[in-house]
Amino acid sequence: MPKNRDAARASLENLYRIFTVPEAPDSTLGAIDQAISGDVAGFLQTHIVAIERPLEEIEADFSSFSIPEEPTYVSEYTEFVKENLVAHSVHTASPAFVGHMTSALPYFMLPLARLMTALNQNVVKVETSKAFTPMERQVLAMLHHLVYGRDDGFYPQWIHNSQHALGAFCSGGTIANVTALWVARNRLFAPDGGFRGIAQEGLARALKYRGVDGIAVLVSERGHYSLGKAADLLGIGRDDLIKVKTDANNRIDLKALREECRRLQDRNTLPLALVGIAGTTETGNVDPLEELADLAQELGCHFHVDAAWGGPTLFSDRHRHLLSGIERADSVTIDGHKQLYVPMGAGMVVFKDPTALSAIEHHANYILRHGSKDLGSHTLEGSRPGKAMLVHAGFSIIGRKGYELLIDMGIERARTFADMIQRHPDFELISEPELNILTYRYCPPAIQQALTEATAQQRAAINGLLDQVCQLLQKYQREAGKTFVSRTRLHVARHDMELTVLRVVLANPLTTDEILEAVLAEQCEIVRLPEIQALLRQAGELCPGLAKAV
Amino acid sequence: MPKNRDAARASLENLYRIFTVPEAPDSTLGAIDQAISGDVAGFLQTHIVAIERPLEEIEADFSSFSIPEEPTYVSEYTEFVKENLVAHSVHTASPAFVGHMTSALPYFMLPLARLMTALNQNVVKVETSKAFTPMERQVLAMLHHLVYGRDDGFYPQWIHNSQHALGAFCSGGTIANVTALWVARNRLFAPDGGFRGIAQEGLARALKYRGVDGIAVLVSERGHYSLGKAADLLGIGRDDLIKVKTDANNRIDLKALREECRRLQDRNTLPLALVGIAGTTETGNVDPLEELADLAQELGCHFHVDAAWGGPTLFSDRHRHLLSGIERADSVTIDGHKQLYVPMGAGMVVFKDPTALSAIEHHANYILRHGSKDLGSHTLEGSRPGKAMLVHAGFSIIGRKGYELLIDMGIERARTFADMIQRHPDFELISEPELNILTYRYCPPAIQQALTEATAQQRAAINGLLDQVCQLLQKYQREAGKTFVSRTRLHVARHDMELTVLRVVLANPLTTDEILEAVLAEQCEIVRLPEIQALLRQAGELCPGLAKAV
Repeated sequence: MPKNRDAARASLENLYRIFTVPEAPDSTLGAIDQAISGDVAGFLQTHIVAIERPLEEIEADFSSFSIPEEPTYVSEYTEFVKENLVAHSVHTASPAFVGHMTSALPYFMLPLARLMTALNQNVVKVETSKAFTPMERQVLAMLHHLVYGRDDGFYPQWIHNSQHALGAFCSGGTIANVTALWVARNRLFAPDGGFRGIAQEGLARALKYRGVDGIAVLVSERGHYSLGKAADLLGIGRDDLIKVKTDANNRIDLKALREECRRLQDRNTLPLALVGIAGTTETGNVDPLEELADLAQELGCHFHVDAAWGGPTLFSDRHRHLLSGIERADSVTIDGHKQLYVPMGAGMVVFKDPTALSAIEHHANYILRHGSKDLGSHTLEGSRPGKAMLVHAGFSIIGRKGYELLIDMGIERARTFADMIQRHPDFELISEPELNILTYRYCPPAIQQALTEATAQQRAAINGLLDQVCQLLQKYQREAGKTFVSRTRLHVARHDMELTVLRVVLANPLTTDEILEAVLAEQCEIVRLPEIQALLRQAGELCPGLAKAV
Repeated sequence: MPKNRDAARASLENLYRIFTVPEAPDSTLGAIDQAISGDVAGFLQTHIVAIERPLEEIEADFSSFSIPEEPTYVSEYTEFVKENLVAHSVHTASPAFVGHMTSALPYFMLPLARLMTALNQNVVKVETSKAFTPMERQVLAMLHHLVYGRDDGFYPQWIHNSQHALGAFCSGGTIANVTALWVARNRLFAPDGGFRGIAQEGLARALKYRGVDGIAVLVSERGHYSLGKAADLLGIGRDDLIKVKTDANNRIDLKALREECRRLQDRNTLPLALVGIAGTTETGNVDPLEELADLAQELGCHFHVDAAWGGPTLFSDRHRHLLSGIERADSVTIDGHKQLYVPMGAGMVVFKDPTALSAIEHHANYILRHGSKDLGSHTLEGSRPGKAMLVHAGFSIIGRKGYELLIDMGIERARTFADMIQRHPDFELISEPELNILTYRYCPPAIQQALTEATAQQRAAINGLLDQVCQLLQKYQREAGKTFVSRTRLHVARHDMELTVLRVVLANPLTTDEILEAVLAEQCEIVRLPEIQALLRQAGELCPGLAKAV
């Protein structure tokens, strides 16, 4: 927090000034603004300090808990932000940061985002958003069309319908998933005779009315953690978010799923929804959506597809078959800030049935009146920015074919990287990329060999040490600040164990093969650290018939 | 949607270009960007067309439901956006638009928002946000300090605590209110002996464990509609969102509240939470928070204050007493995009007990690990932008004293406008401004007089006609596009009826007395329309002893 607050005093005059007079181009903020306009990549490269500073040190700059009494100058504050916030933020746009789901942005997103901020529309209602309402409805219709491909007669009837909405635009995939399950729950317990519906009467009375003891959501153990939040929030309880085991390819095990469904019957619990994943967060795999659709139909339950990550694969003629069956889903989540290359904070959910969202419809006296086209009557959130504009821009400027190129390139790059890992003696590919995500770990050849001969107990001990190697490797690489991969823990069928693995997401179009080689080369450097060498030696000593493994 | 998509073809080369080459300053988008940098008020004034275009016409520009196959040029798209979206958006920043809760923005918000977008941090976890995590935690601590004013020893222990969070930053007040009630629900049904808590076991088992038939949330009939969504979402049911009647000043009727609580007991329903409102959306009134705190203590239930609108009144030495008792609330919602003058999409909820949010804590394998400082383990949303930066900027640059000026000016301006209305013979002030919101209606003196003498039946008929006048007046004023007030329906104690009224929110510091006079003058013009005159004549004919009322 800047300290010098003398002449920036709180006066009416100064107050009017900050609401009316723009920053001079030669001021600190003006200069930053110009630098971002001119060359955002250069700006980020210059201003984000590469070397990690301990979080505790950064916290010291943000430790005052009093709102400053006096105003301060914009220039002074901007200096503070530059030195203390920007310098120590994460270079998410870097093509060498391949561990997260945030890519570089197309350059037009920045000036358009500023335009959106300047307009400051509130899309909760037409009165504060006007053209932004039909624009958002169009974006939802386009996404609906991408997923469901209904015929030309369908959309004119629904796109600007004053009673219904084809989907909901949200702040992110979590709210999208919650909305989908909320709709599913309210439709399962819709008003019926004397029962006025769960929205009115609540969950306990709904269960009693249907004569069941509970409701359950079924998803593979790779399901996103937002589903757990949804189960908690909606009153279902996390116990009844059934996490079904996966096959060797990280896809839901259909036999196990059927068994779980039978078990639900035994305890008088209704399946509320099956959730298929199109692009698991950790490994990028796609569940067998056709088979899930069949089972959901058989059970008469809601079928939701969490395609937050993988949805845009539908743009690709070559790869869209991987998502075959998604068009049978009752609802589908797709994130804008992932593979639609929109800035953070944009999720969407679309519903096959254009009347589905009426299950969560709500009204108020001053807005969202019956028959209005206000978007807010069908969203979990209330006041919202016009962020759909940036999805609209992406769809329009990049086009289906542009997105197809991005998707195809990412999947190809992931295969290239998988090849590099497999050819490299010191790494073990853990999950092959089905889309553009893969996992691997550091495991020198001698240990790889020894693991095949070890007893279960030895394997557990060796893998435990490799887990530690993985964790340190990832930490030191992140701290060095040049490249970044993430890590997670996965049950790996081949090893029949839960392992710590490195995770790579390849969605940044600026990531090259050279960069990927550099990522592996840096890892080979890092493992030479004495701390990691000691762990590897220890692992070697545990290996059967292997005196000096490394 | 622009049509010309020839040479902007989807090629690798063009793709790299949109991720790397910025827009030239002399391009269409570059020019817009510069215009916004130089003079945002002028840009909005020039580019937003004042006269309302019918929504159906606007919809025609957003009616294609196919994502365009080919890419298009940024310049072409920008032209489309300028003509079809910007031109027909709402001038929310206009000082003459006093009907909604969106004001002009301090100029520094725009370049800082662009910086935030360029950095594209994801505050769900430290790994993709680094310094943005302590920065957001500081913002929450500052807000906590504003509300609860705990002593200097308190904050260093909690502000950057790796187990807990003092609050949650959200996309808006709705998610903030939902989060508060979610926490309240999960704390009421916390793990206890054999019962593993509602988060695990769900609502039905929780009720059974406690031996109750339901849980209820109590709020006045002025409560925000987001509470209804929360009751639905959380499985409580809207029936058990008890809307308590208000007194003549739109504040919760404490006697009626106590009766409702007794009735809950009769039907074996636990009070989950009392919700006090600090600044009702429709009339800006503040519930008696001290008394609500007393009652919540007596009942042993959660006390939430929805201060989405009125929270920043705490900045004012002169007016903060109106919110006295808020420091006893278990949780408080305050919106950033309302009276903190931050762009759309920023809400916050803080909790008195710094461990409260652990009731909704969640973890995953790849992020939000136990003991991490990841903000995402205590929020309803997942991936989120670093929007707290703009609240941080507001707190730092405007300071407590600057916000105090803004609050004091708004309340003063509302009193001035109330005086104007009361002095004007043709208007009736419906609700006096307690903060900076008031309601009124058009009601010429003869009808005002006649209403005091009319029978109940006559009054109902006359007021029904005045409701229509009000509705048309608001509609035509909005469509003319020069000034804007909103409307709502309120039960008005003085008339013992529900009436349609005009609603004015005075938070834009650029609104002057002259503008407010112009708002009334325009309304006096609009009522001369034959359609409205006919309604007034009809009302006059219904008036007892009044041949020609108008």
